[in-house]
Amino acid sequence: MKAEWIYYPGDFEVKTVNVFNSRRYERDAVIPPIWQSHAVAPDVKFAKQFTLKKGEWIEIKADGTFNIEIDSPDNFVKDFDRMIYLDKGTHSLTIHVFCHDGRVPCVYVNGETIKSNREWYCSVLDGDFVHVGYGGFYDGAQSPNEFTLAYQEMPYVSKEVKDGYILYDFGKETFGYLKFTAFNGVGGLEIYYGESKEEAEDFACCELTDKVNFSDGETRTKITKAFRYVAIKARAGAQYDNVRCMHEYNPQPTQAQFICADGLINDIWDISMHTFGLNTREFFIDGIKRDRWVWSGDATQSYLINKYSFFDLATERRTIVALAGKGEMKRHINTIVDYTLYWLISFYDYYAYTKDKAFLTLWEKRFGEILEFCLSRVDSSGFMRSDPAEWTFIDWNDALTKDSEYYSFIQMLLYKALCSANRVYSVLEDGEKAARYQAQADALLQRIQKTFYDKEKGAFTHSLIDGKSDGRIFRQSNIMAVLYGVADEKQRASILKNVLLNDAIPATTTSYMLFYEYSALCELGAVDVVLPLMKKYYGGMIELGATSFWEYYDPKQSGAEHYAMYGRKYGKSLCHAWGATAIWILGKYVVGLSPMEEGYDQILLRPRLDLLPAFEATFPLKEGQVSVKWLDGALTVRSSLDGVLEIDGKRIAIVKDETITVE
Amino acid sequence: MKAEWIYYPGDFEVKTVNVFNSRRYERDAVIPPIWQSHAVAPDVKFAKQFTLKKGEWIEIKADGTFNIEIDSPDNFVKDFDRMIYLDKGTHSLTIHVFCHDGRVPCVYVNGETIKSNREWYCSVLDGDFVHVGYGGFYDGAQSPNEFTLAYQEMPYVSKEVKDGYILYDFGKETFGYLKFTAFNGVGGLEIYYGESKEEAEDFACCELTDKVNFSDGETRTKITKAFRYVAIKARAGAQYDNVRCMHEYNPQPTQAQFICADGLINDIWDISMHTFGLNTREFFIDGIKRDRWVWSGDATQSYLINKYSFFDLATERRTIVALAGKGEMKRHINTIVDYTLYWLISFYDYYAYTKDKAFLTLWEKRFGEILEFCLSRVDSSGFMRSDPAEWTFIDWNDALTKDSEYYSFIQMLLYKALCSANRVYSVLEDGEKAARYQAQADALLQRIQKTFYDKEKGAFTHSLIDGKSDGRIFRQSNIMAVLYGVADEKQRASILKNVLLNDAIPATTTSYMLFYEYSALCELGAVDVVLPLMKKYYGGMIELGATSFWEYYDPKQSGAEHYAMYGRKYGKSLCHAWGATAIWILGKYVVGLSPMEEGYDQILLRPRLDLLPAFEATFPLKEGQVSVKWLDGALTVRSSLDGVLEIDGKRIAIVKDETITVE
Repeated sequence: MKAEWIYYPGDFEVKTVNVFNSRRYERDAVIPPIWQSHAVAPDVKFAKQFTLKKGEWIEIKADGTFNIEIDSPDNFVKDFDRMIYLDKGTHSLTIHVFCHDGRVPCVYVNGETIKSNREWYCSVLDGDFVHVGYGGFYDGAQSPNEFTLAYQEMPYVSKEVKDGYILYDFGKETFGYLKFTAFNGVGGLEIYYGESKEEAEDFACCELTDKVNFSDGETRTKITKAFRYVAIKARAGAQYDNVRCMHEYNPQPTQAQFICADGLINDIWDISMHTFGLNTREFFIDGIKRDRWVWSGDATQSYLINKYSFFDLATERRTIVALAGKGEMKRHINTIVDYTLYWLISFYDYYAYTKDKAFLTLWEKRFGEILEFCLSRVDSSGFMRSDPAEWTFIDWNDALTKDSEYYSFIQMLLYKALCSANRVYSVLEDGEKAARYQAQADALLQRIQKTFYDKEKGAFTHSLIDGKSDGRIFRQSNIMAVLYGVADEKQRASILKNVLLNDAIPATTTSYMLFYEYSALCELGAVDVVLPLMKKYYGGMIELGATSFWEYYDPKQSGAEHYAMYGRKYGKSLCHAWGATAIWILGKYVVGLSPMEEGYDQILLRPRLDLLPAFEATFPLKEGQVSVKWLDGALTVRSSLDGVLEIDGKRIAIVKDETITVE
Repeated sequence: MKAEWIYYPGDFEVKTVNVFNSRRYERDAVIPPIWQSHAVAPDVKFAKQFTLKKGEWIEIKADGTFNIEIDSPDNFVKDFDRMIYLDKGTHSLTIHVFCHDGRVPCVYVNGETIKSNREWYCSVLDGDFVHVGYGGFYDGAQSPNEFTLAYQEMPYVSKEVKDGYILYDFGKETFGYLKFTAFNGVGGLEIYYGESKEEAEDFACCELTDKVNFSDGETRTKITKAFRYVAIKARAGAQYDNVRCMHEYNPQPTQAQFICADGLINDIWDISMHTFGLNTREFFIDGIKRDRWVWSGDATQSYLINKYSFFDLATERRTIVALAGKGEMKRHINTIVDYTLYWLISFYDYYAYTKDKAFLTLWEKRFGEILEFCLSRVDSSGFMRSDPAEWTFIDWNDALTKDSEYYSFIQMLLYKALCSANRVYSVLEDGEKAARYQAQADALLQRIQKTFYDKEKGAFTHSLIDGKSDGRIFRQSNIMAVLYGVADEKQRASILKNVLLNDAIPATTTSYMLFYEYSALCELGAVDVVLPLMKKYYGGMIELGATSFWEYYDPKQSGAEHYAMYGRKYGKSLCHAWGATAIWILGKYVVGLSPMEEGYDQILLRPRLDLLPAFEATFPLKEGQVSVKWLDGALTVRSSLDGVLEIDGKRIAIVKDETITVE
């Protein structure tokens, strides 16, 4: 094992998400999140016991002030200068670090055999020692406190001098800060950003603005922001030669590729990847303009899309940990009932795709706290209650009623969360808990079936009113019934017919729920139905000039109506992670790639060769990648993992690093 | 009410104590505390609703980045520039502040009628709004994050050029940093501090050292330290013209005065005041050299001494709040069983001397958590358990056995804590809790009497061994039986004879326990016994050249033996708060000043005129001061509070601001 920076579990993620979440702006007003921001422990002890076969020099670094204690309490190293020497034999090494400036206390220890790594323990001096947290910081010269994304210079593609301002077009949706060259140190600039041209030129109403004061020596904007267009007004006397965007991005060593015979699908793929890339920042976030926070519901989809785009597990772990938070669970994650349940579901999902048991072990306690918090809301009705003062999101949809405390949608998420708990504790070899939660899941499933399934309508109803089913049918809960294993075979067929393919049921308008709706349709075999829907939905945005996919799209709207939301002219986010749904659909249901079993040590490939005359795709895996080519009636597969190819019911072994061709 | 800076309750105190506690050094090794350091909430919302009779401009300041929300959610102030204008009418004002750099989020709002003050609410977005915290920061230009003590230049009194170093004597124990003038920017200095000359000149073993690198542009030592002597070695080429101490202190507008016909008592008073002043820093601390942390047991005595020296309630509140900590109570305060109980006792004591109900209200919840934490340790024995892994301090004394889990001393503290709880909840008008805790106190008192009082020995025994009294008699628990109302009248007399005046019982050697022992003797009327004891104990240190009173004094030791403790040659602190005990004894039992009743709205003065032929004393009160002069058989009293003078059983009314003379 290499040496890496270690810290108290969650502290780096909590600190980083605090900073991230508080960079959301509405013009010049900063908008910190509406939920609790947790704090980093200021003082942490790191410790390890070990036996040296021979003496060695050990380098020790820490962010913060620290002392080093060797072998016995109060035996502090004096006159410490970068390294210590330890004789052969058994030692204990304790490094006590404190940071009162908001940095994360962290250490890096590097000797020939003694290295800080995931096997170390730490304590906030509360009486417990726990395994350390880690984030893949292997460079001793760069601590977690210096973590940043990457930057790349990006020129504008066109410039228009208007009356009193200059309008720059950067060609497509982007994210970064603006840098000015050859500026003249008098006065300053007023900057108006727009995801659309309309927004940038609407000085009174655009969502994001900035000021740069050349007089104060400023030459760049401070906070990175989302935009395609920028309108710049120079105040009296301010001059500059050029403006460039410093594009900020999360570098991805491997990226999925997809190309097919259908140009529109290719465009949808490309724009989806661009959209997803922009929203893959320090964390998987929701949208880069107005929203710009880390939300569990959005992230849960991003984790899945990630498996077919970047397989970026570092960002995924950061996001899961940041959302888990610290301390007493007093409110739902992001203050949203469903988002806490998604967190539980995604926690196991992470394992299902990675077999990273150490991560499960490290976060087992928090998982248990969050699960029990949810179960504490299950009352005598046998269902989980959404208190009226809480936010039950489900979906943005005007038709969806929110007049109950018990939604079938929430119960289905809880059922899935309990099944996830069964798997988590099975992996962690805690049979008692695994069985207990599975029993609770089974009982809940029966209650859901009994209470919410409406045999006449052939679908699950929405909520309880006065303790009884409200009889209302919406897509959302029926989608989850299909995806989360609530509906049986007969019910699945019925839902397909009576809900998903029934135009009388209010249509889904968010990409968010479309992610699940398309998935449910595909799970029910209707990939052929989904492809044209996707082309129409995302194609509609492309026709309107989208260079990234939106938070919400309603084909019935027109012109600048498309930009409005939340009662604001440009309130809608034009680059939203859930807009990248097509990556998941194409990867999982068209190319047909999925884990063969829990842990993803082998791939299962079930391509739909009837839908596209030709396609070629490459997806990163947890190790290496898989390439699939469908051309001229021949399917070629090459994978770095073993697996199985399934075509027309036939199963063909995939041997890693060997090319298979099926004609 | 004036405008003042407000913050989330406890955050300023927690931040300040974290910084304070982590400035303890052992040579160049920093020694952060052995208990958990809590974290400041990074994001806080401050809010208030109010009605304006006419419009007004309101100045708003905050430490950290912030937004301002007026009247309705998401109605953020744009283009904010120092002030906002609000029309007449009813408004809500919310200021959301976040600091990710370790500073305390805090705000200052100042309009004609709208001012940030103790009536505001705040939230860490955990679903609750609570009353804000405050620390008396009325200056809008200086936020709590800029809080510092004061500095005063202090020259050395003598200088001795030795072989390879210069020894400076600052004349008496002090605390500060060293400042060099006319330095030459080459090389640097090695600095060795000593509370004694021996220590400063013992380069290998002195507790505190420093380096100043002129080459790096340094001209002062970084961290303030405790010393009387400083030995300075100049490394090759380093030159300076002069060194001065910048004495750091907590300015006290009023200070008690005491002078009497006995020169030694005057010296004891003066040195006690010097000792107590040095240990009255950001908080009431234990000792300024080796110890330098904030400890609840020490602070509990300091609060009492404070009432007869500075009446500095700001430092007292800071200390109580800092010790209370935040979050789940997982361990005892300072990791010491008795110290948690002292905290509970001192919490009510603060009210008893101040009538500050708002403080009780603000900290009621935390008081309840800490009390319940202690009560959770009461097991089926009916007594509070000290787990073997925990630290039951009681006192430093070699004779004292620590081989039990149940100490009578601890039960007596718990009894007093429960009585305090009764008073706290009575003041807060929570009759149910007041009655419940009193009932628990009464039951505990009976158990203590039944289990620990040894009628034959006429004293309380020490601990339970195998569920039975160990039969061992120590002073400590019997002192507490007297002071905390456990012993009845007959037992008190018996304790005086059989324990306190019995040389066969191991003597008390710490000033810490002497504080209580002298108090108990005085409570039993033996002030005449205490005065000579005090003169002998403190006079012994003065004879050895003490300029401040020590952590521990054993007259049987000699020479440099006096400086050793904890297995270290200079481990003993020569300036320890509990060394200032004489202030309390002289004030409370000789001058005889105490509160007339709970809240201290009136004074009760019961001077012992039989002990000293003459004395003159002035003590600060919560408002104003009281002067008492005993000279030539006449007693003159002048007080800014009403009260009662009691002499020889006669009660004479004291009318505020009027001089009374009794001949």
